[in-house]
Amino acid sequence: MQEPEAVEILLVEDNPNDVELTVHALRASNVANDIKVVRDGAEALDFIMCRGPFADRDINRGPRLILLDLKLPKVDGIEVLRQAKADPRTKMIPIVVLTSSKQERDIVESYELGVNSYMLKPVDFGQFTESVRSLGLYWLVYNQAPVRD
Amino acid sequence: MQEPEAVEILLVEDNPNDVELTVHALRASNVANDIKVVRDGAEALDFIMCRGPFADRDINRGPRLILLDLKLPKVDGIEVLRQAKADPRTKMIPIVVLTSSKQERDIVESYELGVNSYMLKPVDFGQFTESVRSLGLYWLVYNQAPVRD
Repeated sequence: MQEPEAVEILLVEDNPNDVELTVHALRASNVANDIKVVRDGAEALDFIMCRGPFADRDINRGPRLILLDLKLPKVDGIEVLRQAKADPRTKMIPIVVLTSSKQERDIVESYELGVNSYMLKPVDFGQFTESVRSLGLYWLVYNQAPVRD
Repeated sequence: MQEPEAVEILLVEDNPNDVELTVHALRASNVANDIKVVRDGAEALDFIMCRGPFADRDINRGPRLILLDLKLPKVDGIEVLRQAKADPRTKMIPIVVLTSSKQERDIVESYELGVNSYMLKPVDFGQFTESVRSLGLYWLVYNQAPVRD
């Protein structure tokens, strides 16, 4: 059986425009080539937990970074965060919430559940690109995560 | 009584050269003016928990970011991290470990205790400055932390 592809970034985002902008900015900054996009919270949990259509993945070789929108179909981002941070096999994967929600309740709950960082999506196109570029550079070049092998 | 100064970054570092380099890089990047330096883990915990010489500080108005070395006199950085992340009043302050330790045990333990990010100190002067600049920009400009007032 062919080994499933290595994934550096899991992008959990249902808005097609935001997917396109985010992937473009990450690729342009040359920090990540292997980006997997999932479009709802249930698919995100299947990917992270290596079950269902992703049962052939190895949970010990997870993504180096998860970018997580909050408003998602099926299962919301807060619930994805809760489950990923509650499981000892996945809790060490850095998770950055990338959302348009400025609600203090969302920010506080994310930190309580152990989010690594919380970033607002800028409305301006240029700022969005620059923010995502900085985010990718910070988490994939500067940040050290535990070795996953 | 005069209100204690607002602090944006608490830098916990005992090496005078690293203090100088870090403060210089943060100031040069114009992201933080109010930087408090403490030089051992006991003083860091007093500052974070607002006790002892820092009893007049308000624990609800803590720093926006803590930069934490691991090898520290009196109380080590891992213990500072453990206590700060175990207390509901302080657990939401972003903590970035900034260390020369590449030991996997330190990385894993930091993530298990809930560190937000872990960064190695580059040996090269220019790279050190550039890393700290990126770090300051990311955490003080892009990252959203809960409102502390």
